Amino acid sequence: MFLSHIFAKTTKESSTDASSANADLLERGGFIHKTMAGVYSYLPLGTRVLSNIENILREEMDKIGSEVFLPSLAPVENWKKTGRYDNVNVLLKASPANPFSAKHNDAEYALGSTHEEIITPLVQRYCTSYQDLPCAAYQIQTKFRNEPRPKSGILRGREFRMKDLYSFHASEEDMLDYFYNTSIPAYTSFFKRIGLGDITEVVLASGGDFSKEYSREFQTRCETGEDHIFHAPGSDTFYNREIAPSKAKPWDNAAEEERPREDIVGEGIIGVEDLAAFLKIEVERTTKTLLFETDTGQMVAAVVRGEYDVNEEKLRTVVGCKSLHLAPAASVKKVTGAEVGYAGPIGLPDSVLVIWDDSTAGRKNFECGANKTNEHSINVNFGTDIPAPSEFHDIKVAREGDLDPETGKPYEVFRACEVGNVFTLYTKFSDAFGFTVTGADGKQQPVYMGCYGIGTTRVMGVLAEVFHDEHGLLWPANIAPARVHIVPIAKTSEDKPYKEALKLYESLSKKGVTCLFDDRLNATVGSRLADADLIGVPTRMVLSAKTLDDKGVEVKDRKTGDVQMLSLKDAEKSVSA
Amino acid sequence: MFLSHIFAKTTKESSTDASSANADLLERGGFIHKTMAGVYSYLPLGTRVLSNIENILREEMDKIGSEVFLPSLAPVENWKKTGRYDNVNVLLKASPANPFSAKHNDAEYALGSTHEEIITPLVQRYCTSYQDLPCAAYQIQTKFRNEPRPKSGILRGREFRMKDLYSFHASEEDMLDYFYNTSIPAYTSFFKRIGLGDITEVVLASGGDFSKEYSREFQTRCETGEDHIFHAPGSDTFYNREIAPSKAKPWDNAAEEERPREDIVGEGIIGVEDLAAFLKIEVERTTKTLLFETDTGQMVAAVVRGEYDVNEEKLRTVVGCKSLHLAPAASVKKVTGAEVGYAGPIGLPDSVLVIWDDSTAGRKNFECGANKTNEHSINVNFGTDIPAPSEFHDIKVAREGDLDPETGKPYEVFRACEVGNVFTLYTKFSDAFGFTVTGADGKQQPVYMGCYGIGTTRVMGVLAEVFHDEHGLLWPANIAPARVHIVPIAKTSEDKPYKEALKLYESLSKKGVTCLFDDRLNATVGSRLADADLIGVPTRMVLSAKTLDDKGVEVKDRKTGDVQMLSLKDAEKSVSA
Repeated sequence: MFLSHIFAKTTKESSTDASSANADLLERGGFIHKTMAGVYSYLPLGTRVLSNIENILREEMDKIGSEVFLPSLAPVENWKKTGRYDNVNVLLKASPANPFSAKHNDAEYALGSTHEEIITPLVQRYCTSYQDLPCAAYQIQTKFRNEPRPKSGILRGREFRMKDLYSFHASEEDMLDYFYNTSIPAYTSFFKRIGLGDITEVVLASGGDFSKEYSREFQTRCETGEDHIFHAPGSDTFYNREIAPSKAKPWDNAAEEERPREDIVGEGIIGVEDLAAFLKIEVERTTKTLLFETDTGQMVAAVVRGEYDVNEEKLRTVVGCKSLHLAPAASVKKVTGAEVGYAGPIGLPDSVLVIWDDSTAGRKNFECGANKTNEHSINVNFGTDIPAPSEFHDIKVAREGDLDPETGKPYEVFRACEVGNVFTLYTKFSDAFGFTVTGADGKQQPVYMGCYGIGTTRVMGVLAEVFHDEHGLLWPANIAPARVHIVPIAKTSEDKPYKEALKLYESLSKKGVTCLFDDRLNATVGSRLADADLIGVPTRMVLSAKTLDDKGVEVKDRKTGDVQMLSLKDAEKSVSA
Repeated sequence: MFLSHIFAKTTKESSTDASSANADLLERGGFIHKTMAGVYSYLPLGTRVLSNIENILREEMDKIGSEVFLPSLAPVENWKKTGRYDNVNVLLKASPANPFSAKHNDAEYALGSTHEEIITPLVQRYCTSYQDLPCAAYQIQTKFRNEPRPKSGILRGREFRMKDLYSFHASEEDMLDYFYNTSIPAYTSFFKRIGLGDITEVVLASGGDFSKEYSREFQTRCETGEDHIFHAPGSDTFYNREIAPSKAKPWDNAAEEERPREDIVGEGIIGVEDLAAFLKIEVERTTKTLLFETDTGQMVAAVVRGEYDVNEEKLRTVVGCKSLHLAPAASVKKVTGAEVGYAGPIGLPDSVLVIWDDSTAGRKNFECGANKTNEHSINVNFGTDIPAPSEFHDIKVAREGDLDPETGKPYEVFRACEVGNVFTLYTKFSDAFGFTVTGADGKQQPVYMGCYGIGTTRVMGVLAEVFHDEHGLLWPANIAPARVHIVPIAKTSEDKPYKEALKLYESLSKKGVTCLFDDRLNATVGSRLADADLIGVPTRMVLSAKTLDDKGVEVKDRKTGDVQMLSLKDAEKSVSA
């Protein structure tokens, strides 16, 4: 590929979103261009990187399923059948753009953000017996999601590329076997091949609406990542913060004498940091009491130590309800007699279910809301001011330093970007379409499904996010837009360095080694070398009168910065396809 | 690929559209499934065929441009800038599916049916000087069109795959040079490689709104094709009927004596065949007079011999107006004094411009409408009943047997399917975006563009349409879902024929020869061999106890039906990757 043939050039500034490393570098390097919020054009270099990623992924997925290509336009009735048409927040629809178009065909379609609604009835058409299962099919294609806040360059867009695989099974065991022993190893192999293996962890995450089981996320360690991953040193288990079980970081004041409770006026002080400062106590002595209402109308008071937040999902599991949400201000006032922000566990009506987090155990002389507007109780003690709770639960959002209940060791936390996920769907979608198969006994039996996603454009963004330095990108060889970046330093294409460089280009190309050839002789040498660094191809080869007088070619490793002078022959030998 | 691993099976009946060979065969063969009108799912075998087509196309396009990947969601304002948002009949838009989605982001987007509106401003961003041109970029991706009548299986859909290439030039000459000397040869090479070379012609067609130049269509000869191609034997030029110039098939009655004109009542007779029968005259003696109104309000009478239709585009060119349309009934009555169907050239007001087609020349005693409801004039003669026209034009839709004006030879006509097209766009789109470049003289100069399309799913449909027999499909080797279809005839996978077949499969796969392996031992031999014919892989290899007792393998050429008995070694040698 000759750089002069590519219309898209490197630029000094990215059009937008310079706060995101991937957006900034990929735009400046001429890989992508932002068409509008959350929607990107992939330029020649970017299309190459994306193809490299998708081709490696295709090879791995071909081992565990058959490739298909499903339409983006889906019948609305299929999405209504699964109950998702009206409640998937990010769903877009396609409809006629103008009266002419509507006159021809005024139908509306769901625009695919995911494909359970297409693949389930499709497989149902062909698979009627347990003997037709298991089967698995995947595709790599564009998805559409009306993201509220597209951000972070190509990490979260309204239009993006994704590999989605779906598996179908005659039993739960078979579904779980495929999930653990087929899909996860294939994913691991893919991430290894594209250079993310060492920094990508398999992480337990919520099963979402789909499943009682945890899902698995593939999370790449990345300082700018959106997710917080919890891991106890020595443990094999990684948790997404949303589900990390935790025992509170110990805070013990058992040696203190109990002091008499007092109610202190502290007008308008709501944040725990401010409150602790105002009361001149440790944050750990403060208490947060939040009121929730369940789907059945039960009022729940969730009580955690001041520095914690309540994890609604954990609370929901402890309460055993279908759903819950923060109680509205009016309900809070009715129950506590106070405005929002002053709730406490003392003196709540019997109708309120109080759930104590383990972080609140073992404290003396603690603080809590007084259930009076602007007032806080201090020196509260179990047994004296309020009955000691019969049990404590884990209903908190885990924090760094909390103990992993399994190992008893304090968690370490790192930030990460999700690059893939795998879900057990059980019979959620097959039930919606009435998809059953005939079993060995001749009776109809349920079909179990799994779904497995990897956002390929997101993976490209994460690669840029984790592999760059102050000069530009550092692509792993497998997915780089080329293996070698050749820079002849010459005045004209008749000069020797140009001719020798061209020979090298042709010879490497013949061997299957992809090359960029910088034939932009009008540009300054400095800008051309800076471009090579910015574009980030693994090996740079410079040919000039000077290098030809020496051994021949200056070969630079983009990542290490190591420079060697090699003969043309050795330079050619130093890289392989 | 093991047939038992593919969820999609061959079926006895296609779900729909059995009248279309490609839809019927591709559905029954397990290549595609109709999700809804004009929208198809590509199953594992179909995805392979489509990938083969697209990969060959990619190789050819990489020689003449850089691959990019542009978004399907386009800013509505870009489509308004080119004036196409409100008048492209097939345009779809994307918008929030439900109130939740609208709350997040209520923007509407044009859903890409073509990409001039994205690529033009994109290239504009990077190319500012004549030295940045020429450049060309292409992509292969899904397009959306709200087709009024999706039909013919995957030949005309609402969602389909397409390769679209765009080129940008600093001069008209450069645009034309790329158009003729780069794009057309690349297309020709592609169609040759996928097996359509011998039956695909480069055809002159309308330049559409884009251009005064003809466009070129690549038309594959096919009995069920929608287009009619005109070709004079020995000529290099092929015309789409819509623009084929023609001289009428001669019909001469100069030897007749002139007879006196008569007006005959023939109530409600309008079609020329009925009229000729009623009047007991030859159809060639009848005359069709159609009234049109131009964009400036000029009334035009177009006069053609009875068996011809008026070609509005030719008429528009002769009149020299921007647009014209059939005059409404009220205007016709005002001008002729008669209902629609009885117009004739005699006695029209002077304000009406009368255009005579050459088919009306040289006749005596002809018929025409009498400009009186239900009446027809017969024995009309130039010079006697109406002044002889000073000139005749070509304003007719060409018919088989008409003369090619260039060679003077009668046209032959064949039906064909359009598989590609190339257009010169001139400055239509660059003007809309104000895209100019600095010339060598430092002044801004216009940018010339071309666009070049190939519908890859349509090409797949055409291949099915032209390559099949009564038993099923006949894929060319380059794009077949596999090169070899192996059928072991055995009771279990422990039997020798199965084991030997598997060895052959592995050995061929190692050589890069793609194979289907029919491991469905439960199915009858007859149904498995019928499936092999239906799927249409070029070579079938059967291994049974009987063939192993003989030389080893029964090798059948799917196209010729030739069967040979070969040793395992020779069978393996008989095919290459």
